[in-house]
Amino acid sequence: MLAARWHPPSYDIRVEKVKVPQIEDPDDAVVKITLAGLCGYDLHIYRGQESITKIHVTGHEFIGEITKLGSNYGPSAVQSTTGRPNLYATLNVGDKVVAPFTVNCGECHVCRVGYTGRCPSGALFGSSKLDGGQAQYVRVPKAGGTLYNLSSPSSWSNTLTAKFDVETLLKNISDSSLLLLSDILPTGVFAATQLLAHPKMQPMLTGRAWPSSLNQSSAALDSDTGLLTPEDRILTIAIIGLGPVGICASVALLDALGQKGLPYRIVAVDLNKSRREKMNKVYDAIGIDGKSQNGEFVVQSMEEARNTVTTWTGNIGCTGVLEVVGNNSALEAAYELVRPFGVITSVGVHAPKIVPFTGQALYNKNISFDFGRCPARAMFPLAFELLVKRQDVFGQVGTESSLIDRIVNIEQASEMYRAFDQGEVGKVLFNPWK
Amino acid sequence: MLAARWHPPSYDIRVEKVKVPQIEDPDDAVVKITLAGLCGYDLHIYRGQESITKIHVTGHEFIGEITKLGSNYGPSAVQSTTGRPNLYATLNVGDKVVAPFTVNCGECHVCRVGYTGRCPSGALFGSSKLDGGQAQYVRVPKAGGTLYNLSSPSSWSNTLTAKFDVETLLKNISDSSLLLLSDILPTGVFAATQLLAHPKMQPMLTGRAWPSSLNQSSAALDSDTGLLTPEDRILTIAIIGLGPVGICASVALLDALGQKGLPYRIVAVDLNKSRREKMNKVYDAIGIDGKSQNGEFVVQSMEEARNTVTTWTGNIGCTGVLEVVGNNSALEAAYELVRPFGVITSVGVHAPKIVPFTGQALYNKNISFDFGRCPARAMFPLAFELLVKRQDVFGQVGTESSLIDRIVNIEQASEMYRAFDQGEVGKVLFNPWK
Repeated sequence: MLAARWHPPSYDIRVEKVKVPQIEDPDDAVVKITLAGLCGYDLHIYRGQESITKIHVTGHEFIGEITKLGSNYGPSAVQSTTGRPNLYATLNVGDKVVAPFTVNCGECHVCRVGYTGRCPSGALFGSSKLDGGQAQYVRVPKAGGTLYNLSSPSSWSNTLTAKFDVETLLKNISDSSLLLLSDILPTGVFAATQLLAHPKMQPMLTGRAWPSSLNQSSAALDSDTGLLTPEDRILTIAIIGLGPVGICASVALLDALGQKGLPYRIVAVDLNKSRREKMNKVYDAIGIDGKSQNGEFVVQSMEEARNTVTTWTGNIGCTGVLEVVGNNSALEAAYELVRPFGVITSVGVHAPKIVPFTGQALYNKNISFDFGRCPARAMFPLAFELLVKRQDVFGQVGTESSLIDRIVNIEQASEMYRAFDQGEVGKVLFNPWK
Repeated sequence: MLAARWHPPSYDIRVEKVKVPQIEDPDDAVVKITLAGLCGYDLHIYRGQESITKIHVTGHEFIGEITKLGSNYGPSAVQSTTGRPNLYATLNVGDKVVAPFTVNCGECHVCRVGYTGRCPSGALFGSSKLDGGQAQYVRVPKAGGTLYNLSSPSSWSNTLTAKFDVETLLKNISDSSLLLLSDILPTGVFAATQLLAHPKMQPMLTGRAWPSSLNQSSAALDSDTGLLTPEDRILTIAIIGLGPVGICASVALLDALGQKGLPYRIVAVDLNKSRREKMNKVYDAIGIDGKSQNGEFVVQSMEEARNTVTTWTGNIGCTGVLEVVGNNSALEAAYELVRPFGVITSVGVHAPKIVPFTGQALYNKNISFDFGRCPARAMFPLAFELLVKRQDVFGQVGTESSLIDRIVNIEQASEMYRAFDQGEVGKVLFNPWK
């Protein structure tokens, strides 16, 4: 088969003929790839920043069709008698599937808790540990725990908070749009969800002072410092980094705030003018049901954002910051913009560099930090709902406001990595068959 | 008056005759000190670690009686017409008061939200910015926003979640016990409250997988990965540092978990054997209503704790860690013991040293950190309730299980700082009048 493979030490992607992967473990599936995405994190590997030397198939975003299943699936392995979760009973050869960017078993303590991105049996696709999806086929370990089965929506449609006609919806949503469920859309939803769930955000969300904000039943506590004023309740949020994940996080945040009818002021920040322009186009494309009348949303450079936050909050700072870059400059910008008792949610993938903060600086601002990888499998229902609602943004390819710039043949992988690294193209999908 | 004063550069506390502080601003009060506490943070100043050079009166924990009030108080300044919060209407000369360790105005946005420890008009008592309470008198800026009025419990008893006969209670609680409300008890309650409120703890608390754990109304999401097992729900928590604040945090945590009937395994860790012994004595002194039948609580060295956490969780790690020391070794120990998607709540006061983590290490474990100072004013109701319930621990002086080691004349301040710094004495209170 054809596969894009990374070669050490850096900047070397080759499209090569390799053997089609086979079932190695009874929990495996083999998936024939329909589309595979090129993602910002792939550049960390491309540039040789991940301290690995192993030649491997790249890519952690893919959608496709199951062609083979290990012996733990199928009629001979009746799931109901094995004690395995239902997930392992719903896969069949021919099913259309989308994978989260990491493998997870779906049946250990960590998976049951919902922290699927850190399953001890997990691995990242397109890493030295596991070949990725920028190829014609991919092997998926722990497929029952990992894959979303798009051919069997009845197996997961009851996990949605809204009731859709999922079968009809799935017919109308393109593969390129569904591919966004593998990483950038759940990661964006995770960032927004995590920020808004943080206890330090609750006074603004509930209108009740800390700590009575934490406890819906302790109404009596309100009288201590009284209720918040409408002005106190305005959420001031900065989003640092407007690549595809930053845009997804922005759309997810706008949706969550709009749904709750909360007042907000958001400043979306990027160094790069073309990314700022893309963010503005996306914002313009969002339908009226995806924004709030109570909200203000501006896209700015960091220099402008400093002044904006000062104008909005008078030297106090932002209630929360989403860090969607993954380097120390972004962390420093987040620290600078956030208020005392503010929350910094970081979904950027960071390098092995010491973070640029003293314990005193973190103490003095009462900083809360949430770092890390999205548990994409667990975020699937919320990400799918946003995908459905925001087809005005996520359903497009190659328009001014689309997240997906183009779909190309995988033979162009080497050139596309180079162009993506240089900022010459936006998000690219590979079709490995034509 | 007599006052303990710090002299630069370090290790120099002198008890000196200085002028009694006067009203400087219409919002000020002058308080005659009954008792003042010596706290772990005072040692940072004592040792010259705070980069200050100004001679100043030390101490940020005190209880006393109002002797003077600025012109913004009293019959001539009718609060109801000024728009100020009620707090400014409840103070009178002669009132018994306890102060949180920082000043806060009580009427700005930050105070209304409840983040009183970071009021922009605030200051720490016993710092280069504001003379402290280890003296016969202290000036309290923004007294209406800052002081808890113990002579007027009706002004705040409606802020308690439980209904007590507060007047009777206050007659039976000693001044040395009430003094704990100025810092260490609210800080301990803050640490425990903050940890248990974190979104990453909610799967264990609610029995529902992330992210449905965040939303009580989205019952449908449960079917995705199913409900957690009883074993999944056991909270595994480490407490790093068993000085007086660590002990308060432990008692607060045990109380909160017991109240909610949650299963837990707690390992309380300290390098110092005498602090571990004290923690064990305190645990033994806690009445049956302050522990849970579902809980396990052990006090260990770090070496022992590593093995214990492995035995309990099989290489996964603790659900959460309370860091109550304030140095990089403690942060490293917290990182080592916590699980992926775990929460580290740090209330230790940190020095201006870079924290010992790479962004990659924080990303790879999906670490959440909450740093910073307790908003002691806002935590008063919850801290007062715990003080009342746990008089078996907080009501004692000089016993094996008491947090307060002894009460001495302030003229012994220099010797007590030395002995406290050397670990020869536990928590000391100063009586400045005999």
